[in-house]
Amino acid sequence: MKQFAVIGLGRFGTSVAETLSRMGYDVLAVDVDAEKVNAVMDIVTHAVQVDALDEHALKSLGIRNFDVVIVAIGEDIQANILVTVMLKEMGVKTVVAKARTELHGRVLAKVGADKVVFPERDMGVRVARALVAANIVDQIELSPDYSLMELIAPREFVGKSIGEAAIRMKYGVTVLAIRRGDEIIISPGARHTVEEGDILVVVGRNDRLRRLEQ
Amino acid sequence: MKQFAVIGLGRFGTSVAETLSRMGYDVLAVDVDAEKVNAVMDIVTHAVQVDALDEHALKSLGIRNFDVVIVAIGEDIQANILVTVMLKEMGVKTVVAKARTELHGRVLAKVGADKVVFPERDMGVRVARALVAANIVDQIELSPDYSLMELIAPREFVGKSIGEAAIRMKYGVTVLAIRRGDEIIISPGARHTVEEGDILVVVGRNDRLRRLEQ
Amino acid sequence: MKQFAVIGLGRFGTSVAETLSRMGYDVLAVDVDAEKVNAVMDIVTHAVQVDALDEHALKSLGIRNFDVVIVAIGEDIQANILVTVMLKEMGVKTVVAKARTELHGRVLAKVGADKVVFPERDMGVRVARALVAANIVDQIELSPDYSLMELIAPREFVGKSIGEAAIRMKYGVTVLAIRRGDEIIISPGARHTVEEGDILVVVGRNDRLRRLEQ
Amino acid sequence: MKQFAVIGLGRFGTSVAETLSRMGYDVLAVDVDAEKVNAVMDIVTHAVQVDALDEHALKSLGIRNFDVVIVAIGEDIQANILVTVMLKEMGVKTVVAKARTELHGRVLAKVGADKVVFPERDMGVRVARALVAANIVDQIELSPDYSLMELIAPREFVGKSIGEAAIRMKYGVTVLAIRRGDEIIISPGARHTVEEGDILVVVGRNDRLRRLEQ
Amino acid sequence: MKQFAVIGLGRFGTSVAETLSRMGYDVLAVDVDAEKVNAVMDIVTHAVQVDALDEHALKSLGIRNFDVVIVAIGEDIQANILVTVMLKEMGVKTVVAKARTELHGRVLAKVGADKVVFPERDMGVRVARALVAANIVDQIELSPDYSLMELIAPREFVGKSIGEAAIRMKYGVTVLAIRRGDEIIISPGARHTVEEGDILVVVGRNDRLRRLEQ
Amino acid sequence: MKQFAVIGLGRFGTSVAETLSRMGYDVLAVDVDAEKVNAVMDIVTHAVQVDALDEHALKSLGIRNFDVVIVAIGEDIQANILVTVMLKEMGVKTVVAKARTELHGRVLAKVGADKVVFPERDMGVRVARALVAANIVDQIELSPDYSLMELIAPREFVGKSIGEAAIRMKYGVTVLAIRRGDEIIISPGARHTVEEGDILVVVGRNDRLRRLEQ
Amino acid sequence: MKQFAVIGLGRFGTSVAETLSRMGYDVLAVDVDAEKVNAVMDIVTHAVQVDALDEHALKSLGIRNFDVVIVAIGEDIQANILVTVMLKEMGVKTVVAKARTELHGRVLAKVGADKVVFPERDMGVRVARALVAANIVDQIELSPDYSLMELIAPREFVGKSIGEAAIRMKYGVTVLAIRRGDEIIISPGARHTVEEGDILVVVGRNDRLRRLEQ
Amino acid sequence: MKQFAVIGLGRFGTSVAETLSRMGYDVLAVDVDAEKVNAVMDIVTHAVQVDALDEHALKSLGIRNFDVVIVAIGEDIQANILVTVMLKEMGVKTVVAKARTELHGRVLAKVGADKVVFPERDMGVRVARALVAANIVDQIELSPDYSLMELIAPREFVGKSIGEAAIRMKYGVTVLAIRRGDEIIISPGARHTVEEGDILVVVGRNDRLRRLEQ
Repeated sequence: MKQFAVIGLGRFGTSVAETLSRMGYDVLAVDVDAEKVNAVMDIVTHAVQVDALDEHALKSLGIRNFDVVIVAIGEDIQANILVTVMLKEMGVKTVVAKARTELHGRVLAKVGADKVVFPERDMGVRVARALVAANIVDQIELSPDYSLMELIAPREFVGKSIGEAAIRMKYGVTVLAIRRGDEIIISPGARHTVEEGDILVVVGRNDRLRRLEQ
Repeated sequence: MKQFAVIGLGRFGTSVAETLSRMGYDVLAVDVDAEKVNAVMDIVTHAVQVDALDEHALKSLGIRNFDVVIVAIGEDIQANILVTVMLKEMGVKTVVAKARTELHGRVLAKVGADKVVFPERDMGVRVARALVAANIVDQIELSPDYSLMELIAPREFVGKSIGEAAIRMKYGVTVLAIRRGDEIIISPGARHTVEEGDILVVVGRNDRLRRLEQ
Repeated sequence: MKQFAVIGLGRFGTSVAETLSRMGYDVLAVDVDAEKVNAVMDIVTHAVQVDALDEHALKSLGIRNFDVVIVAIGEDIQANILVTVMLKEMGVKTVVAKARTELHGRVLAKVGADKVVFPERDMGVRVARALVAANIVDQIELSPDYSLMELIAPREFVGKSIGEAAIRMKYGVTVLAIRRGDEIIISPGARHTVEEGDILVVVGRNDRLRRLEQ
Repeated sequence: MKQFAVIGLGRFGTSVAETLSRMGYDVLAVDVDAEKVNAVMDIVTHAVQVDALDEHALKSLGIRNFDVVIVAIGEDIQANILVTVMLKEMGVKTVVAKARTELHGRVLAKVGADKVVFPERDMGVRVARALVAANIVDQIELSPDYSLMELIAPREFVGKSIGEAAIRMKYGVTVLAIRRGDEIIISPGARHTVEEGDILVVVGRNDRLRRLEQ
Repeated sequence: MKQFAVIGLGRFGTSVAETLSRMGYDVLAVDVDAEKVNAVMDIVTHAVQVDALDEHALKSLGIRNFDVVIVAIGEDIQANILVTVMLKEMGVKTVVAKARTELHGRVLAKVGADKVVFPERDMGVRVARALVAANIVDQIELSPDYSLMELIAPREFVGKSIGEAAIRMKYGVTVLAIRRGDEIIISPGARHTVEEGDILVVVGRNDRLRRLEQ
Repeated sequence: MKQFAVIGLGRFGTSVAETLSRMGYDVLAVDVDAEKVNAVMDIVTHAVQVDALDEHALKSLGIRNFDVVIVAIGEDIQANILVTVMLKEMGVKTVVAKARTELHGRVLAKVGADKVVFPERDMGVRVARALVAANIVDQIELSPDYSLMELIAPREFVGKSIGEAAIRMKYGVTVLAIRRGDEIIISPGARHTVEEGDILVVVGRNDRLRRLEQ
Repeated sequence: MKQFAVIGLGRFGTSVAETLSRMGYDVLAVDVDAEKVNAVMDIVTHAVQVDALDEHALKSLGIRNFDVVIVAIGEDIQANILVTVMLKEMGVKTVVAKARTELHGRVLAKVGADKVVFPERDMGVRVARALVAANIVDQIELSPDYSLMELIAPREFVGKSIGEAAIRMKYGVTVLAIRRGDEIIISPGARHTVEEGDILVVVGRNDRLRRLEQ
Repeated sequence: MKQFAVIGLGRFGTSVAETLSRMGYDVLAVDVDAEKVNAVMDIVTHAVQVDALDEHALKSLGIRNFDVVIVAIGEDIQANILVTVMLKEMGVKTVVAKARTELHGRVLAKVGADKVVFPERDMGVRVARALVAANIVDQIELSPDYSLMELIAPREFVGKSIGEAAIRMKYGVTVLAIRRGDEIIISPGARHTVEEGDILVVVGRNDRLRRLEQ
């Protein structure tokens, strides 16, 4: 099983470490601030207070043996870059680094980061999309034109069968699944009736999907 | 069409404002820092430099007429809370507020925020999940047990038809769609052959989906 | 007997703790600053150095068992609000919180504070009223129109009986009591003579009372 | 009519200035911070931004012609003392100064302050007293042994006449007045019935009054 | 023999403590800064690290038994004033306090300082006077009109007897003493010859003395 | 007449500038802080706001034409040294510099200061000496063994003539002058009677003078 | 002729800009601090106050047209890296960047710096070498084993011809040139006599050269 | 063998200490910052954490017995000057001090520094010269007119013998040595052929050398 290390235990790093740990993976959590280390003590496999800029200390953690190291240092861009370089020079196979700006992201790529993430920017995009229509729960952009969307069943569908509602014909989108409470109905047939509160998983062109928003 | 205002132009707020604006909505962007306001000047409909804690100034922006106001103030929790209260007291219909911690989130709910978001925490969860398997592109958690996943076709499927691969039988998951370059194949039939590089959209129980990760 | 806890040992909090303690009540005094805790050590029942934002530490003090908790944190509005929320969530029956501004006060009410006090504002009102007339010692506003006032006997009353001075008829106010040195004369009769230095407790309409000021 | 000046526009000073102004008096409000001066601009007669430590500037305001000057400077004890001295040397008749500690108060008295006030300490005392019993609204300490108290009528009095309740005999306190909504009944007779929600103004020895608290 | 305490060990306080100690007096040196206390350890009788604002600590030093306490606290005017008040309230007979400005000096006098000194101001006066004429070594102002001056013998006197030089007649000043190397000639006679390098101690009116300056 | 410039307008520098100006000399006062410059505007001939470390600005003041420049910069030792060097390099004839410590004083001498003064140290010495005996007004140290002293006439001399008191014989000191109110009696004869309150100017060996102290 | 830009006008950057300018090259000097820009105004061709992190401003300077840009930003490593990246992305042909540490130097190389310099480290090496022997003026390390050295003629050579001194034979080094005052003698013959004060330029193995040090 | 001490372990000081140590000399490294001392622990003979401004501590290191002490304190000019003075007063034979500016350098010379170095300025000069021509490796300025230069062989020389290229005649410079890989050819003859990649050591007038730059 893969082994992960997370360096920098701000809100993003802590969330990454906690999620991986809950999924059953071994996680080493590292921060220079003892208080932040204590806060994750009970959540992850190992949590140590170390200044990641101290190359010697980092090595003695056996950091090179981890499959993936996430550099979640947020405030200090300089430390974020230097630690990324050190990790790659030590031979860590996959280094994922958090960037604050596009330029910062390009620097991380140039110094060897295998993956660069922009949490605030990406989450801003997601939140914005969800705000546009009150009935959209989540969505995945499949291509610039197509999206997959999880949305509360529009009022005009309720009480009708999928066939009656003629969703595919009238709206040009396909209902892939229906979530009703804890139950998941996959590839529902045309005779399946949509109930109030159903969550539909649909796929289609963006301009068509927009018409389902309420 | 809905009208949005975003207060606080850090990386998250800027991303929300920019995304809404690109989707064609009118967005008013507000920050106390003139430099941050300038940075979004060309992106949003209106950008003004105002201290949101100044109730008088806020009112003179006609803030009560906006459908949704996003309080994206990040560093200053006190300002974040006070502005949320003021907006609700002024009669703004929907106030979405960004929280730093769970406790902060509960305060926001109590003082009237209609929706509370935790960008760093939520993005940490997403990033963690994506790291676990190199072939997962994105995913939506439908229920605690079921997920919908967009993943690069596992090696053992390539060159086989969906029927041959017996995905539903052997893995207990259903292929809802295939993305091949710009093309989207919805509800592919059993005879459809999976090609190298295909992106599969599948749905199933979490424990089953895990077996497709590589 | 009621049990009190005071969180935040600035001048206001210390005064609350000290007064309650002198009245014979058990008081737990809490502050994050050890020096401030030491300063009340000899005055209250228990004084502990604890960061009230640390939920775990707060619980281990058994804070939920106190009848009334006064949140006297002054400088840090954020801490003031968060601690108030935590106390209510822990089930403390009565939480009294000190507010700096009207808006702050409304937030405190919304997050569950049972009583909100504004010491500087209220004291400003009292001091202002006392300054207006040199002979007013203290007063209670009974209604927007009526007040009860403790004032040094006006010069024109001295040497006359209450009947002679015709206070009720001429001034429209009633003398409820006279304080003469350590003695208190309640509901003095018309034949009672006012002496120099007497303190009168009178009640009446505000516009009438104003005429007794000197 | 008396003329007042308030130096230092923190929450206490602002409250003093505002109260005096509402009572119809001319008030000059002074602070070194332009923002604080602006905040009271519409409330007081005159508000000027001046460094009170600048003797020349202070004089040019004609400060010596004011009847009462309140030194409400709070944070900076040094400035508080020096300004008090300057005002007295300029010949201001009555200087009222706010003190932070007992020692500070004694210094103010020695350098000539005519009256020294301790807002946080005094308000702490009041709040503490009010907390002890839920039915006490306000009170005035007439002497170390006697107080005058405004309290919600105790449950056992409700529905009885003052005579029946035998308040003076049984409790040793005298009901001076009853407040019922907007109405004030002064020196109510023995046949007067106490209703639920009545506010009683009573006078008596402290140990006796304590028995009315609930 | 008198006992002295010096509170505040800046350059002025240290110099006072050191001079008194060299003259054979017992000196207690007090400062809140341990480093400054260490620096005088070998010079004075006792040196202790104490915060003079801590009344309890000050008392435990037996400060009231010292004949003279010098408050040499320089930077912190507030502490300087408060300590002076505390010392007088404790009953110290003579308190000498260092002032920074005239106003500060008046405050110190009002709160009970027995003597107020202005080292920088006074030294500025002395240095200025010495600069005016290169041959003046030191001087004492006896009255606004008369001074006593120690000066290097003016060139025109050298080689002449005091009588020949006719100092008293021509210049209106009297030679009280001559210092020649280590020797002191008191009240030199008219026949005494002035040599090159002699230091004359003269007394006279200021306008006359000025003529001897070179 | 000599021309003076004072650089650095702290309390010492201001006092030097003011004293010289009162003695009728032209004084240029320089400081980098505009407020300090304003404070001496009315006292000295010229006062300019200039950063003395800016060689160009210093030159444009014509600083090289002043007879004496006093470097009274106190806090910033570095600036104090660098300005002293610049002044000497520009050809200023006499540079007087204020030192904080002995080592600092030696540096100033090495870089060319013509005279180094230690105001706090020297004033500490003077104050200490004056404190030792309540009747000493001022004194000049003529040599390590001899001093000239201005002191209030000791009690045992009052009412006696100088001859009767046998001051020179019994005490080994000579009375050079008597100051009685505004009058100065130079070289008083043996028959001269000492009155209460007379100030004597005496000269003698230190050990003898000590016996006159009270 | 080449065109240079220097970004960052600390002591190193200023020295680079000044040297290039004195050699006759066009130099654009850039710093965010107006004071530093003013200081080089008269020395370089163009000096502008610009924040180099502002990509837009940098472009509007036409920075891409300069042949060589030196990033001499010293304190702020983050800015140093980001500006280096931006310059390369804009297409500047040669970017020379100053590094503080080895790790920093490696980052600069990875993000595209064409040359990385370590001024303090390199100057430390040079100064150290010069200190070892009092007669060494300067030196160039040709290889790990060979150096070229400029040194004051050792005492034992003075008065002898190069042949007599047998420098090549006895010491294994070759005299390439002699500097005598302003004159340079290249490849001096064996009969050339070494005079006192001559500066020899010699080449040889390091271990041999060491023997000439004094 | 000479003994060295380096005070101040910034990048310059560390480089000096390390270079001397690698050349086999005993080096004492001193800094007030323990972290910097630790960083050189393994490199130099002795490394101690001492505040060099503490004269007593400095003496107890036996600093006077070192042949050369390098004052590499960089940020704090005041400390840099004071330590230099102390070292000379203690009798250290050779004190080398680092200066920030020309004025600072002159002060150091005046207070006795035997050698003053300007690392940033000098390195700026070197870097600037090297940038001018891509083929210059290093150079030594022999006089204002003559330099010795190490440069990559210009393209037009490659494949020709030194005689053919007529370097001395055509360019007026002399080839003193050729470095080819690890080999050094001293005073190469006219028949020696220049190969691609050869490094030439040449000497000549500056204006002539400039023509070899590429």
